[in-house]
Amino acid sequence: MKRISYITSDFETWKSEFNFKHSVVVRFSETDMFGHMNNTVPFTYFEEARIQFLYHIGMREKWFGSANSCIPVVADLQCDFIRQVYFEQKLNIYVKVNQIGRSSIDLHYLALNEQNEPCFVGRGTLVQISKETGKSVPWTSEDKGKLSQTLPVID
Amino acid sequence: MKRISYITSDFETWKSEFNFKHSVVVRFSETDMFGHMNNTVPFTYFEEARIQFLYHIGMREKWFGSANSCIPVVADLQCDFIRQVYFEQKLNIYVKVNQIGRSSIDLHYLALNEQNEPCFVGRGTLVQISKETGKSVPWTSEDKGKLSQTLPVID
Amino acid sequence: MKRISYITSDFETWKSEFNFKHSVVVRFSETDMFGHMNNTVPFTYFEEARIQFLYHIGMREKWFGSANSCIPVVADLQCDFIRQVYFEQKLNIYVKVNQIGRSSIDLHYLALNEQNEPCFVGRGTLVQISKETGKSVPWTSEDKGKLSQTLPVID
Amino acid sequence: MKRISYITSDFETWKSEFNFKHSVVVRFSETDMFGHMNNTVPFTYFEEARIQFLYHIGMREKWFGSANSCIPVVADLQCDFIRQVYFEQKLNIYVKVNQIGRSSIDLHYLALNEQNEPCFVGRGTLVQISKETGKSVPWTSEDKGKLSQTLPVID
Repeated sequence: MKRISYITSDFETWKSEFNFKHSVVVRFSETDMFGHMNNTVPFTYFEEARIQFLYHIGMREKWFGSANSCIPVVADLQCDFIRQVYFEQKLNIYVKVNQIGRSSIDLHYLALNEQNEPCFVGRGTLVQISKETGKSVPWTSEDKGKLSQTLPVID
Repeated sequence: MKRISYITSDFETWKSEFNFKHSVVVRFSETDMFGHMNNTVPFTYFEEARIQFLYHIGMREKWFGSANSCIPVVADLQCDFIRQVYFEQKLNIYVKVNQIGRSSIDLHYLALNEQNEPCFVGRGTLVQISKETGKSVPWTSEDKGKLSQTLPVID
Repeated sequence: MKRISYITSDFETWKSEFNFKHSVVVRFSETDMFGHMNNTVPFTYFEEARIQFLYHIGMREKWFGSANSCIPVVADLQCDFIRQVYFEQKLNIYVKVNQIGRSSIDLHYLALNEQNEPCFVGRGTLVQISKETGKSVPWTSEDKGKLSQTLPVID
Repeated sequence: MKRISYITSDFETWKSEFNFKHSVVVRFSETDMFGHMNNTVPFTYFEEARIQFLYHIGMREKWFGSANSCIPVVADLQCDFIRQVYFEQKLNIYVKVNQIGRSSIDLHYLALNEQNEPCFVGRGTLVQISKETGKSVPWTSEDKGKLSQTLPVID
């Protein structure tokens, strides 16, 4: 497999650090005339899986609750395509926190098909901003506790 | 051409009553693995053309301005497919008001290709509701003046 | 509830005739700046549910198999919006065959939220065409057997 | 502005090397409930602009013609978000070839609003593959001539 800049350990180690997954099935409307999943679609899957992941670690109330003062915004996104993906394939989209910044997190993504083969991988930075001012808002220690739950353990 | 329930006059008369158009080009990501424009796409074109049409007749400030108290919501939508549409075809999407209700309008749509052949037609009801209460808000006479600009003249 | 032209019996009877459902969850990317599910999205759900339904009744091999000579194309589509739908709501999309033509079927759709309240309903014609000629291809009696499995029983 | 790994020269130099643009207008259906353009949308714009760019430099017949034996596939994609983008903003999407590989190209993207402010930037690798075998196909010297038309001149 080609080298991917943000996978700094070997692939198997990187893969073993994921412990959250969300499954999707490729829709017909997500294919294109070349016969496979269109290249814009993984980012929709990343968003869907990311939000489920954030709920899972306890960020729902803070960011998507009715009285939320902060929202998460995407600062960057990337995707590396490894295998062609086709209509109606079921994919497990894995998500993990790779790094925690002052008011941002670096999230990593891995999509495996039903044969557990990697189809695409990705990453992206999420920044917490104030709904009112639009400025970034540093993590509280409570946030950090939640976000570090799935951080890879480094000895 | 098959009979379409909301085209009550003959097709040429119905077509001649349009006097607003907005052009779109079919995106690659809007095709599907059967090789043509996916069936969900016309509704995106209708929305894009509808909003340009509403701006054109002067409803922008009221509905999309920063101090808007009302918004337009879609109550129903339909589309009849006449010709296959392919990647990178340029379509002119025509829009007209077909009928004005108490707080709603019935909009008609026609998509012509560059050979002026009809590719799909459609219609849908738009209702003006209050952002605060969610209830429908009757047209003012000023609204009616704007909306009736493109109404077909019935002798 | 407003009267919907293609629901010719009373709503409860019409609703009781569905016996296939497919569930979806509203994606964040499917909302719009008015805060709810965008009006173009139900047609994506209809397509997803329709294909699952067609598989369920045994049309997969014929239409989506590797040696398929026919494909189903959408001839028309419509949707009536009953209730606002929001991010992350789970919807059950019900599908049934309402009528069988010579080479087409009229499919009906019903979307219920988790409180079993109708959010939107719809219908659309699907036509079987030849991949090669693009012409409509009449149902075989085997097709009709499959398609009539969920037809409402009329005494 | 934050440092972006693939912009190796200073931003103004990098920006000055683009000489192709394609304009888009943000659709209502491309916004989300946070009120701005959804993060998955730039990749659709990149695709639309990329194809126009490829046509512009003369790759249409080879890749999208009726007798094409090769197709371009996306190997990776990334986007860095610089400014919030809103409904109905007009964006100019600039595209250039940054580097030419054996059978691939590295394309760069820049989106400017009407005030010529950068809203997002991106890049991605496109690989030419055989439709039949799925294997990568090296550029001919004719291809290289076309692709190098917009390469930044390095003294």
